[in-house]
Amino acid sequence: MSALATPGFEDVKAAAARLAGQAHRTPVMRSRTVDAATGAQFFFKCENFQRMGAFKFRGGFNALSCFDAGQRRAGVAAFSSGNHAQAIALAAQILGIPATILMPADAPAMKVAATRGYGGEVVLYDRYKEDREVLARRLAEERGMTLIPPYDHPHVIAGQGTAALELLEDTGPLDALFVPLGGGGLLSGCALSARALAPQCKVYGVEPAAGNDGQQSFRAGRIVHIDTPRTIADGAQTQHLGEHTFAIIRREVEDIHTATDAELVDAMRFFAERMKMLVEPTGCLAFAAARRLAQPGQRIGVILSGGNVDLQRFTQLLGQAG
Amino acid sequence: MSALATPGFEDVKAAAARLAGQAHRTPVMRSRTVDAATGAQFFFKCENFQRMGAFKFRGGFNALSCFDAGQRRAGVAAFSSGNHAQAIALAAQILGIPATILMPADAPAMKVAATRGYGGEVVLYDRYKEDREVLARRLAEERGMTLIPPYDHPHVIAGQGTAALELLEDTGPLDALFVPLGGGGLLSGCALSARALAPQCKVYGVEPAAGNDGQQSFRAGRIVHIDTPRTIADGAQTQHLGEHTFAIIRREVEDIHTATDAELVDAMRFFAERMKMLVEPTGCLAFAAARRLAQPGQRIGVILSGGNVDLQRFTQLLGQAG
Repeated sequence: MSALATPGFEDVKAAAARLAGQAHRTPVMRSRTVDAATGAQFFFKCENFQRMGAFKFRGGFNALSCFDAGQRRAGVAAFSSGNHAQAIALAAQILGIPATILMPADAPAMKVAATRGYGGEVVLYDRYKEDREVLARRLAEERGMTLIPPYDHPHVIAGQGTAALELLEDTGPLDALFVPLGGGGLLSGCALSARALAPQCKVYGVEPAAGNDGQQSFRAGRIVHIDTPRTIADGAQTQHLGEHTFAIIRREVEDIHTATDAELVDAMRFFAERMKMLVEPTGCLAFAAARRLAQPGQRIGVILSGGNVDLQRFTQLLGQAG
Repeated sequence: MSALATPGFEDVKAAAARLAGQAHRTPVMRSRTVDAATGAQFFFKCENFQRMGAFKFRGGFNALSCFDAGQRRAGVAAFSSGNHAQAIALAAQILGIPATILMPADAPAMKVAATRGYGGEVVLYDRYKEDREVLARRLAEERGMTLIPPYDHPHVIAGQGTAALELLEDTGPLDALFVPLGGGGLLSGCALSARALAPQCKVYGVEPAAGNDGQQSFRAGRIVHIDTPRTIADGAQTQHLGEHTFAIIRREVEDIHTATDAELVDAMRFFAERMKMLVEPTGCLAFAAARRLAQPGQRIGVILSGGNVDLQRFTQLLGQAG
């Protein structure tokens, strides 16, 4: 656990100020088709249109913006299944900080290429055999770099929370907010914003059915560890929540739901056919559950967390279910 | 030629008032990748996110909103390679007007299905053998319906012009505006808005290289007719400009450029991979030329006219060039 305190909404607001002019203020999209089918009003926060294609830029840039001069010189190390890697690489490039990223060897080719494209040094590992956190800590120590973990860090959480802050600024009060859940950075940050800006709004996390450690943890009241789940939601193949993220999730989140891979494919197809958007499987988690659980008359926010899916992979996934 | 006068910017403003609350005010998207590659600033008006997936809703709804009580009762007839069909069907459904649509038998399956889904009656014809305008006029006469042509109608042109009106309201002055060109409804309407709101802005039409009747007409000073061109830009397979559209284009447009099918596929891939959007081949015309012609320092508006491409077709097109 970082020595820094678990963040609050003040930290989200400070992150928003640092991100102004750096992160896109992504659009909030509507769908009359979804609204007609559910009787609810859906508001989609399109982080698939964020810089580098996912919300992760928010947390990465915020964390690196908080580095002191010595940290900036020595550089940043990170481990990631994909989008955090690109986020750290891009933020480091913008801020002139050297970056080394540990990525799983089976991460989407597009994400590895994009990370290298942003100037990050990529070191590959086997996600089913090696412990990335141990590897990353060793790497950071050897090189004197600051390790920025993908979710369990106060500055990362505060940055991610700016997605819901913007959404709620645009929509006004919501009855429910559905957020994809991997390690909990996005969910915990967004829950801080929802609590402050829309106190009545119920916040739900949605994780892959194949790896419901978040749901288990939420119900058990302690962080449950699982093996790396096999799911198409490659951004949510986490083994456990973080200490900071769990502390916030326990306090601010209403419940954790799950979605199957088949539901994620259905949602991807819907976004492509009806909303003309590419959303990566992990980015579909929140909508996959929200469309099932929506009650007529509700105003429902849904975070689409990213759009980084190889076109070949996208085609393959939709083809299998078509 | 319709008995109505060729429209001006006042008609575009009147259309904008009718469309308020009916058409989406679509987002204007940016791309740092494009800006870095060209040295220009690009502003993408995303009509792929418009209702029914294309700008055509604007013109269709505006035209049907101008019907008198007798016309509303008798219904509307239309001919279209796709998006105009859906636009008329949806606008007719909203306004409670019966609609019959003549569509080419090889139109994208998604467009035919969507037109039927909006409650329109679809009559299919062979676009390479039959003259759709003759067929449509006969159909309208037999049924007492008002024929709304896809582009050469003052209310259609005025409606389409609201796309550039919104873009310029959002961006302020531009140096250049690139617009896809089929029959000229979108180009002429947008040129009216550009002239009024950004008098220094040069307006360019972009049509398929396989069917450059617009370019030929612009240079010859008279409407040139061609055979139906074979191009993946199925929304721009027109054989000639209209009398209203040509009158405006001659007066207000700087030049007409072309784009090859290969350039359209490149642009489709770019939008999907980097901007996470589905844009149909016709919708890529303006960008395909603009990225080639951009000068450093310019502020360039680009209309992405629609996103209605079958996923199977999309995959096939990208696969061939991959």
